[in-house]
Amino acid sequence: MSQEQFFQRHQETLEQAVSAIKARDYWTPYPENPSPRAYGETAAADGEAAFKAALGKSFELEMPGIVGEVEGEVSPYGIDMGVRYPQVDFDQLIAAMKQETKAWRDAGPDVRAGICLEILDRLNKRSFEIAHAVMHTSGQGFMMAFQAGGPHAQDRGLEAVAYGYRAMKEVPADATWTKPQGKHDPLVLNKKFHIVPRGVSVVVGCSTFPTWNTYPGMFASLVTGNPVIVKPHPASILPAAISVKIAQDVLKEAGFAPHIVSMVADTLEAPITKELATHKDVKLIDFTGSSFFGNWLEQNATQAQVFTEKAGVNTVIIDSVADIKAVARNLAFTLSLYSGQMCTTTQAIYIPRDGIKAGDAQMSFDEVAEALSVATSKFLSDNDRACMVLGAIQAPATVARIKECESLGEVVLASQKLDNPQFPNAEVHTPLILKVDASDIEKYSEERFGPVSFLIATDSTAHSMELANQVISEKGAITLGIYSTDDAILDQAEELAMDAKVALSVNLDGGVFVNQSAAFSDFHATGGNPAANASLTDTAFVSRRFVVVQSRRHA
Amino acid sequence: MSQEQFFQRHQETLEQAVSAIKARDYWTPYPENPSPRAYGETAAADGEAAFKAALGKSFELEMPGIVGEVEGEVSPYGIDMGVRYPQVDFDQLIAAMKQETKAWRDAGPDVRAGICLEILDRLNKRSFEIAHAVMHTSGQGFMMAFQAGGPHAQDRGLEAVAYGYRAMKEVPADATWTKPQGKHDPLVLNKKFHIVPRGVSVVVGCSTFPTWNTYPGMFASLVTGNPVIVKPHPASILPAAISVKIAQDVLKEAGFAPHIVSMVADTLEAPITKELATHKDVKLIDFTGSSFFGNWLEQNATQAQVFTEKAGVNTVIIDSVADIKAVARNLAFTLSLYSGQMCTTTQAIYIPRDGIKAGDAQMSFDEVAEALSVATSKFLSDNDRACMVLGAIQAPATVARIKECESLGEVVLASQKLDNPQFPNAEVHTPLILKVDASDIEKYSEERFGPVSFLIATDSTAHSMELANQVISEKGAITLGIYSTDDAILDQAEELAMDAKVALSVNLDGGVFVNQSAAFSDFHATGGNPAANASLTDTAFVSRRFVVVQSRRHA
Repeated sequence: MSQEQFFQRHQETLEQAVSAIKARDYWTPYPENPSPRAYGETAAADGEAAFKAALGKSFELEMPGIVGEVEGEVSPYGIDMGVRYPQVDFDQLIAAMKQETKAWRDAGPDVRAGICLEILDRLNKRSFEIAHAVMHTSGQGFMMAFQAGGPHAQDRGLEAVAYGYRAMKEVPADATWTKPQGKHDPLVLNKKFHIVPRGVSVVVGCSTFPTWNTYPGMFASLVTGNPVIVKPHPASILPAAISVKIAQDVLKEAGFAPHIVSMVADTLEAPITKELATHKDVKLIDFTGSSFFGNWLEQNATQAQVFTEKAGVNTVIIDSVADIKAVARNLAFTLSLYSGQMCTTTQAIYIPRDGIKAGDAQMSFDEVAEALSVATSKFLSDNDRACMVLGAIQAPATVARIKECESLGEVVLASQKLDNPQFPNAEVHTPLILKVDASDIEKYSEERFGPVSFLIATDSTAHSMELANQVISEKGAITLGIYSTDDAILDQAEELAMDAKVALSVNLDGGVFVNQSAAFSDFHATGGNPAANASLTDTAFVSRRFVVVQSRRHA
Repeated sequence: MSQEQFFQRHQETLEQAVSAIKARDYWTPYPENPSPRAYGETAAADGEAAFKAALGKSFELEMPGIVGEVEGEVSPYGIDMGVRYPQVDFDQLIAAMKQETKAWRDAGPDVRAGICLEILDRLNKRSFEIAHAVMHTSGQGFMMAFQAGGPHAQDRGLEAVAYGYRAMKEVPADATWTKPQGKHDPLVLNKKFHIVPRGVSVVVGCSTFPTWNTYPGMFASLVTGNPVIVKPHPASILPAAISVKIAQDVLKEAGFAPHIVSMVADTLEAPITKELATHKDVKLIDFTGSSFFGNWLEQNATQAQVFTEKAGVNTVIIDSVADIKAVARNLAFTLSLYSGQMCTTTQAIYIPRDGIKAGDAQMSFDEVAEALSVATSKFLSDNDRACMVLGAIQAPATVARIKECESLGEVVLASQKLDNPQFPNAEVHTPLILKVDASDIEKYSEERFGPVSFLIATDSTAHSMELANQVISEKGAITLGIYSTDDAILDQAEELAMDAKVALSVNLDGGVFVNQSAAFSDFHATGGNPAANASLTDTAFVSRRFVVVQSRRHA
């Protein structure tokens, strides 16, 4: 396989992706439906078998500096994982990766984009296998693990490739500069403009979205010429490992060193991210995780460009509704999906204490609370559906937090532990919904990661907006929802969103949810409030990953 | 004047500028020749008169929070300046500017770009006045002050507008998202994408290029929706003040608050940049100046996006030449222009100690040194031309440095003080050229700002390249020149440039100089080595100045 062949194979998809980031309509080359028609008759069974075959074994990757093995994943569904991953001396690895930077740089944007798209295409074909790996490390339900861990994550990877490719192509490879000199001959210079990568890139993954939050940084760095180390969360290594292995296969086939994409794994007991992230040759860092560690990286990894997605207090403001049942159903899904373990799940729901207008009627605060509570209970009343939607709680700390939070307010809906018949050891918990007063700001203005939300009684919608603006500006948020039948209020919400620099969803009461974002159309995080210093994906996310080095000489 | 009219007036120029940053051929709307034909018969006299009329008076700007006046400029040409500028309580000013952010944001990219181009057009028309102001604060000779302080600075401002405009326009204002749902109706969302500025922007100017280094940050921030405070160097306030006044006039005519562009001036005795730059509402900082202060800003102004241009050790490597006289003449001009007070002036010139091939002959190191020395002396032998090219030394510390550096090596060409007949008090000094050994790295690897350069005797061209790579990687550089008749060496230099992330000029021996860069074609600094963390201008320079805030709702 020549280096260019992957580019030729995927050029049309790449061009469509570049168009898609401009048009921002719905678009994807990766079907989200795990159907035999889309993925082949045997894909589901093959994927499950491939996943099971990996369990209890050593997972092999090609990297210089391997000094041993690490393991430690615990499935939130209670199955035995036992996968062992290479343990790497990253000083050796980084030195070896630096050696390969020139070849990867000189390959140029087209070859690199072609290889990225081939990797994504192969990731797509292995979406079932990756879905099982995501499910059993993150705790997501299978359907979500398939979609968010498979095609939707691949979308985000391709989107990053498209942004990076467009940014590089905006710089011409060469130019002739002809400056008139009156009666004399013009000055003529030939110029070259080289896209030069920053250096070794480290992508620090999270336990809950081990592919969706890893692919954007990984592919943005890779397409712009930087070798990439994936540093997965110690609880969610397998999805990253499969992804890195696929990348290595493609790189090798194209004649590059496989370790241009590498993986450095560690354990909860012996974390190495701080040392890795502050290595002098690491020039790019992508991070998804806690605000504490994200802020630490921003302040200490000063040798690198640092892109972070951290915690926040996602918010919904209810002012008035046309149809409370539709609204409650919509929010019930948001609060339930993956037990609120999404970085976009609503935590703070502001409602005037004197109630709201619902259609032609007036509803009290407690009636709104009741409607939400009932909708959530009803949605989760079918145990099979509940287990599928809720998934399992990824971390013991999150399970403990549900209990801890009970005392923070009046319980509107208690969290229940459910049994998953297929996985008896799975930690399945329904949402806890609490009622608090606006004055209890310290209770609802800290991120309570997991299935915990607050219905906050405010003086008025104006008060709700004021509090939302304050909390989001101080603590950050990725999502903001507004429900109102009043255009003036919606205009105010639009202003609030711009003030607090947070994405707004308006009156979602059907099949779209505030906690979901679609690649090529929705910007995930703005990079303008404390929840994240970067957006997935915009031009700022890619343009700092390379510099332009020019040369010029007389023609 | 309606807000849109400026956009209509300048739309064609804007479109040409957007094309120019892609094509990177020679292009400018601002004539660099200070001729009556280009600027009008009375322009030169009018400009000088306007400059003189400002001396000894209060310079008025419209800003909330004015609490007094500051003054303190000293002309390097020895004339009395005595201009008094508003002293501002910047807490009051910033609060007032924040109030205006919404109006400026909502004006949108077109209106803002139109206003920016109108400001630039008026700056262009007042290039003579600005030239005198630049000359008498920076010490540049008049012709350079006109070109670099006038049209070339305007070019850099327009270039920043073009980059910012293109980056904003890559985000659609709205989109419809239609997701098929099989047999069911598709999901349809209407989406809006708002360009939201980061916040108040502070542009910290330098004493030597008070407009050229100020306009890129100023216009990049302004076009992307951020109100801008220009914080000029206390020694070079007048060029900034004139520029801010023109911006305020245009803003007012378009119906905006004039203080959307403001100026905060201080004195050498009572500097306020640290306090201003770390103000919680300052979200963008552009800085040109010392590495010490630039690094301080990067580390301490963490509430802001910080763009810096700092010091470095600009480098030329001489391997072999076709025509030593042409090369020596070219370098003599570089070393002489503005007495080496450019951030692009060559300081380190590496030459093999065993000499070089020059055409068919072999030249010893000392013969090359002699050729450079003679060319420089000869070029400056006409006192009028010397005074025009050298200008005056801006800062007393730079005058002192010439003397201090004499002991760092063997003097190849001694610096002389010249008399400027027109300005008897001007500090005019010719270049000091020293010979040192490669092993004296601590002598030539620190920036010695001013007319001081080192001819460094190395073991070989390979050794020259190795040292250049080391020094540039550690200390930074904006320019690198190579002279060689050997293609293999030129290829190695191209690699070196990419490694050290520095712009390369190859065999310049005619009317183009390593220390000059042309807007719309040359990237000034790469942002990839310690001399600067940003480039003038690339996409990374503009894309972090705004975020995208989206809203979405059912169609």
